[in-house]
Amino acid sequence: MTSKNIIPQKHSISKKDRSKLTGNKPIVIWFTGLSGSGKSTLVNVLEQRLFKRRILTYILDGDNIRMGLNKDLGFSDIDRKENIRRVSEAAKLLTDAGVVVLTAFISPFREDRLNARKLFGVNEFIEVYVKCPIEICRERDVKGLYKKAKEGKIENFTGIDSDYEEPENPELIVDTSIMSVDEAVNVIEKFIELKLIEQN
Amino acid sequence: MTSKNIIPQKHSISKKDRSKLTGNKPIVIWFTGLSGSGKSTLVNVLEQRLFKRRILTYILDGDNIRMGLNKDLGFSDIDRKENIRRVSEAAKLLTDAGVVVLTAFISPFREDRLNARKLFGVNEFIEVYVKCPIEICRERDVKGLYKKAKEGKIENFTGIDSDYEEPENPELIVDTSIMSVDEAVNVIEKFIELKLIEQN
Repeated sequence: MTSKNIIPQKHSISKKDRSKLTGNKPIVIWFTGLSGSGKSTLVNVLEQRLFKRRILTYILDGDNIRMGLNKDLGFSDIDRKENIRRVSEAAKLLTDAGVVVLTAFISPFREDRLNARKLFGVNEFIEVYVKCPIEICRERDVKGLYKKAKEGKIENFTGIDSDYEEPENPELIVDTSIMSVDEAVNVIEKFIELKLIEQN
Repeated sequence: MTSKNIIPQKHSISKKDRSKLTGNKPIVIWFTGLSGSGKSTLVNVLEQRLFKRRILTYILDGDNIRMGLNKDLGFSDIDRKENIRRVSEAAKLLTDAGVVVLTAFISPFREDRLNARKLFGVNEFIEVYVKCPIEICRERDVKGLYKKAKEGKIENFTGIDSDYEEPENPELIVDTSIMSVDEAVNVIEKFIELKLIEQN
């Protein structure tokens, strides 16, 4: 290999090529909602459904992000902003790579969700607002976090001493105080059906 | 959906499930070497070869990392360390998702490469040292960076005023001062052959 042979051939394989290989268009389905609203449950059931259809998916959530990529971040407003910024960029890399990404973060701030959206094409970003009255979330309190927040053991807890800004124009709203898991996932699956088909 | 139905079913679809779907084991092929050693050329040719074999791949390099996930980082030693840490974690997410990852970063520090390796299983991390004498890299100077560094226009340039720590036990060494691109890629492709097969 002589000097003149070292010509960078930048990324010969494109996102579109990968779509042809996987058989579907990669999209990001961005779940937002209060703690206890049901985000994790919904992404898990949705992932199982998509897997059965042989669609390659990946869930980004606190479990794999807070222990790895974002383990240097805390829960101040600045850190939460950076948390969501990096999650958005990770989702971008994964969709570039051909994967359908499901994110499950409270992502309470409108601006952060908008910044996430800006990284993607028009039909690539599906914001799903998992709506549920805080009284019900608090009653469910799956992780015991509302109790701790009430006791002052957790600071900056969304809905208690930190704001949740409701989405103004989400692609979908699923109200988990009145819908079953299956009903909610049905709605989402039906909505993303067409988005998963590559339009050439 | 009542409270008792909100039971987190964490990540029902596993890395192994995804392997079955894609038909290969996801691995990371970590290219390290001086600027101008030929990393980008090799990853691009390797990606094309793997794509022809219908293997889903993704390249992580300065182009998609420095403009996105790591756009807040500079080139000080601390920032370079954080750069490689996040690249390692992004590679981990991508392989978890079922993608074969090719990274093309100088990644000059042994400790950082070791930390990257620690995130992966024994047969999942392939360190490829793209070896080339600095005189030849400087002569090639594909991006005109050595010239700028010599003129003092770039600080902390690896091989000039910042160290490159050679890998002690890389899985592979390809010497691009004596091998052609095809020869080097042949060696790598042959080596990863078995690693791509899921051992059940």
